[in-house]
Amino acid sequence: MNTIHVPVNDAYDVLVERGILQKCGEIIKETVSAETCVIITDDNVNRYYADTVENSLKASGFRTARFVFPHGETSKSAETLLHIYTFLCQHEITRSDCLIALGGGVVGDITGFAAATFLRGLPYIQIPTSLLAQVDSSVGGKTAIDLAEGKNLVGAFKQPAVVLCDPDTLSTLPETFLIDGMGEVIKYGMIADADLFRKLCSYDLSNIQEHLDEIIPVCISIKRDVVAEDELDTGLRMILNFGHTLGHAIEAYYHYETYTHGCAVAAGMCLMTKYFNSEQEYQTLKACAERYHLPSDVSAPLEDLLSLCGNDKKRAGAKLRYIVCDPMGTANIRCDSLPDFRNHFISA
Amino acid sequence: MNTIHVPVNDAYDVLVERGILQKCGEIIKETVSAETCVIITDDNVNRYYADTVENSLKASGFRTARFVFPHGETSKSAETLLHIYTFLCQHEITRSDCLIALGGGVVGDITGFAAATFLRGLPYIQIPTSLLAQVDSSVGGKTAIDLAEGKNLVGAFKQPAVVLCDPDTLSTLPETFLIDGMGEVIKYGMIADADLFRKLCSYDLSNIQEHLDEIIPVCISIKRDVVAEDELDTGLRMILNFGHTLGHAIEAYYHYETYTHGCAVAAGMCLMTKYFNSEQEYQTLKACAERYHLPSDVSAPLEDLLSLCGNDKKRAGAKLRYIVCDPMGTANIRCDSLPDFRNHFISA
Repeated sequence: MNTIHVPVNDAYDVLVERGILQKCGEIIKETVSAETCVIITDDNVNRYYADTVENSLKASGFRTARFVFPHGETSKSAETLLHIYTFLCQHEITRSDCLIALGGGVVGDITGFAAATFLRGLPYIQIPTSLLAQVDSSVGGKTAIDLAEGKNLVGAFKQPAVVLCDPDTLSTLPETFLIDGMGEVIKYGMIADADLFRKLCSYDLSNIQEHLDEIIPVCISIKRDVVAEDELDTGLRMILNFGHTLGHAIEAYYHYETYTHGCAVAAGMCLMTKYFNSEQEYQTLKACAERYHLPSDVSAPLEDLLSLCGNDKKRAGAKLRYIVCDPMGTANIRCDSLPDFRNHFISA
Repeated sequence: MNTIHVPVNDAYDVLVERGILQKCGEIIKETVSAETCVIITDDNVNRYYADTVENSLKASGFRTARFVFPHGETSKSAETLLHIYTFLCQHEITRSDCLIALGGGVVGDITGFAAATFLRGLPYIQIPTSLLAQVDSSVGGKTAIDLAEGKNLVGAFKQPAVVLCDPDTLSTLPETFLIDGMGEVIKYGMIADADLFRKLCSYDLSNIQEHLDEIIPVCISIKRDVVAEDELDTGLRMILNFGHTLGHAIEAYYHYETYTHGCAVAAGMCLMTKYFNSEQEYQTLKACAERYHLPSDVSAPLEDLLSLCGNDKKRAGAKLRYIVCDPMGTANIRCDSLPDFRNHFISA
């Protein structure tokens, strides 16, 4: 088992091991003193893994309850959240109980936010079942729901009691989800680990599953180092946003329909590298992205994407902070006015 | 000006001064670096005080916005909260801005929860305008909304950046609100300050306004001492619940319609004292409550109230923690099974 300790205020461990789902009850028993564990999951994950988790919890003496909602980003809403609260009331859940987020980023984010706010907070555990959730969203304590006005607009910082990553769950993922996660995996190489990046340039989509036992803990350790430095997202965490400034613009331009988050981030990273790094580095990243069927560009006009950047900072004089990875394997936080940021692309 | 420092993790001051509303802009300017201050208030308080606050904020160079919702406990809902979020989105509020809770407990609780969760948290300031809010709910960082299933079921701990108490605002309060607040004021005397309690036994509803400058800081200091010891409500804060076990049962029995919170707490304290203290102490408290037109008993059968106690703890073997103030001016946390708790009343 790989154990990555996250030394934030409410410190916790991320445990990575194939088959950990089957024995999650034992581990959770050692971690929290809950009476009832409420499994919160989506209909897809429910079909594959919820019985395994629930059986293990019961075998360890927990009472259990299960709340299942439809998969997909549209479920990350106030409406689903209110249904979760009602379910918790109906099952008389108290602060002595525990929520278990079993699923991808949507499940983790909304369950974490429910755990942060129901009865002003009760313990929760992350069991991420997508690559993206395992390497990114399950670690760091950011929880949220979306509003009609935008993504992640309401949330809280709430650290899980423990994170259990089972790489076996990734074998049942549709390929698009594996590709989605690889966008963030490549990002970790770019911002912090040239060695990881080189390895990714030698693997590809057909054999990456064999290497995930090695790669997932490396990615989590990088994220751990960053969030331990900047628990409340006031500085260094920004480097985790490499490729995200343009990535978010791509997602918004296509109304979150054409590109998954990881694909948008991959294209965003490639575009940034094209305009801020050497031609050779750009070609290297582009080739790496293509090994995992990730896009290195999109058909939307660059000018349109740039005008979507910093859309949340419309005020006169507002500055945009963005990340440049030059040389690859390092991250630098830069800050420009919106016009100056756009000029990097136009004048290049 | 009376300054009470609250030394919790995010430490802050409570400032008590007549007329502080007129200069709140200056004080807030020294406290937070916000660009926009969003005043959140109810329609009653809006009519009396929002212009004063907004003018002071503008004079200090803040941009301002104002969100007004209907007064009353039914507004402390997910529905109002979602309206607040939408308003904040429409006004492009960022983490560099600030919310201002101008009003009583409902306004303070829901505004604090919005501040705890919008964009994962932005600063907020409490300007409590009811006696209950000034001596109780504005201090301690508990924020919440109600669900259909019960009160305060969803919330967060979020300390304000500063609390500004203006006793002048109490002069416009309908008498029922003054009476409501006096329930909690008497509670502070009972749990922690025999000297305060003796004074309350010499004042009455007709002259209490003259003494509030002295009384409010004393109450806040008591609450400060308790929350500083127990920021996240895991132990000592329990003593603030003296009279609340039966008080909540009274509120629930009458569907939150017949008795205000303070009146229910007053009757709850008197009933507790009747069964756990000497006859003389019970008569003293009863007489004190009556000086402020607070009830010392209710017509609901005691047996019915007792069966509503600990209604949130239905599980077999669950224990009820409750407070006994014997001698008056001190608080003791006791713990009994529900049947044992009820027996104190039946066998007496």
